[in-house]
Amino acid sequence: MTVLVFLDPVHPAGRLADASIPTILATDQGLTRGDGVFESLLAVNGVPRKMQAHLDRLAVSARTMDLSIPGAGEWQAAIATALTAYAAASPDGGQCVVKLISTRGPEGADSPTSWVTVAPVSPSAAAQREKGLAVVLLERGYDSDIAARAPWLLMGAKTLSYAVNMAALRHAHSVGADDVIFTSNDELVLEGPTSSVLLAHISDDSGIPVKRLITPHLDTGILPGTTQGALFAAAREAGWELGYGPVTPADLLDADAVWLISSLRLLAPVNSIDGQEIGNAATRAALTAELSALLAATE
Amino acid sequence: MTVLVFLDPVHPAGRLADASIPTILATDQGLTRGDGVFESLLAVNGVPRKMQAHLDRLAVSARTMDLSIPGAGEWQAAIATALTAYAAASPDGGQCVVKLISTRGPEGADSPTSWVTVAPVSPSAAAQREKGLAVVLLERGYDSDIAARAPWLLMGAKTLSYAVNMAALRHAHSVGADDVIFTSNDELVLEGPTSSVLLAHISDDSGIPVKRLITPHLDTGILPGTTQGALFAAAREAGWELGYGPVTPADLLDADAVWLISSLRLLAPVNSIDGQEIGNAATRAALTAELSALLAATE
Repeated sequence: MTVLVFLDPVHPAGRLADASIPTILATDQGLTRGDGVFESLLAVNGVPRKMQAHLDRLAVSARTMDLSIPGAGEWQAAIATALTAYAAASPDGGQCVVKLISTRGPEGADSPTSWVTVAPVSPSAAAQREKGLAVVLLERGYDSDIAARAPWLLMGAKTLSYAVNMAALRHAHSVGADDVIFTSNDELVLEGPTSSVLLAHISDDSGIPVKRLITPHLDTGILPGTTQGALFAAAREAGWELGYGPVTPADLLDADAVWLISSLRLLAPVNSIDGQEIGNAATRAALTAELSALLAATE
Repeated sequence: MTVLVFLDPVHPAGRLADASIPTILATDQGLTRGDGVFESLLAVNGVPRKMQAHLDRLAVSARTMDLSIPGAGEWQAAIATALTAYAAASPDGGQCVVKLISTRGPEGADSPTSWVTVAPVSPSAAAQREKGLAVVLLERGYDSDIAARAPWLLMGAKTLSYAVNMAALRHAHSVGADDVIFTSNDELVLEGPTSSVLLAHISDDSGIPVKRLITPHLDTGILPGTTQGALFAAAREAGWELGYGPVTPADLLDADAVWLISSLRLLAPVNSIDGQEIGNAATRAALTAELSALLAATE
């Protein structure tokens, strides 16, 4: 089941609606032009994780699109209303997906259309965390320095125009893979269609083991990963060294472990890239367990 | 006013709906992911122009996206129903915009959500044809040969994921321009965010005037322009030579005239590119009048 709550100035706590009946105009520009922004976050036992980080990123996405969206307080109120309604309907609790969407509204509208949905987590998320992923590298088509010089490309904004992300995932499935890591024209590692990329290097040159966690740097126009950010903070506390790219495909293949990390699937280990195994199963499993425990302890 | 007709197996002629009330689920993937295809076409006195070309292109877009959409007959029936309803409500006739949209439907749906809208043409379209356009060149970020090697980028498909196109237009407006011509990484001319690019070269080296009409070639991943196609066919009959790019920005600046051409705005002359005048006002006006007459005579 899906709970739906619209942000509505007339209803400060949000306006509950029936998700199974139509609530959106056919002329909404979110629909006719993918003109809007979104966030997906996980709630555990009714508590949204990293809410502030998601609200901050939603605000950045909206600013990049010149879109005026409701403030954090209105989102928080609508999220609370939606989670309460979801808990009442699904009393067994557990995990659920909270999605925040804001569109430019119908042509000529002076305010956006904004809503929150709460729905069950896809069963495939847990399966992919357990079993790991076969990943293919796919070209994203852009130079890694395009974001700074071409703001109209909306790099780093999480817009509703996700057709390419979905097509890349379909392409991966068509060649027997589970997911995608995008690369730039200049052959740097970027991100997944719905995730950030993370890799680990373990060394003990001097007899003291050094554990490094690395992610591509944001200048490449990728989305700042909220889960990657939370894990980095926790890993630093636990003694990991942290690094920000440039990351090349060779770095991935040479890593002790690679993950796709996102709010819903959390830390999903990459078993292979373009058919080549990453590290070995034992190391992948051990590092995934260690970092998943760190991640689970974050708020 | 907007007329709305859904394609619906239960209603072979299409199902009329009220466009002013919600008809789309908040969970439709057209909305949550820009995952769908569309076409916009002009109808004059109740007759859609180039309907087959638009239906053909819609089918190609859908195929590129692995999206199964209704057949041409169902679209034609819904378009006819919508135009009849529009004519009844707007008896003064004239021109209107017919929009065809098909989305992947809500998650797990086994059929797309498909509809037709009919609405008045924006008054700015005629004004831009009359006055001409100030255009800026903006990077699209892709190499001109990306389409063939990266089908997941959906080049040449007209998807609902138009956020970048809209952002490019907003960027143009923010610098005092009216519209955009995108260029590739390798500095070839591509297309406008909602139009094809056309240029004319007039020469009479041998005393006999030669008139050439040129458009970028499709290998660059641009949309095949239905109006450009119709005009090319008519211009050939009228003795014009036709050419397909590569077109460089220098070619545009050196042209006798440049146009942005599309189904709704038709042939809109480009007065300047990045502040530099194209040809001269008299030549632009004469060539625009000549080609507009040819275009008006096409079906």
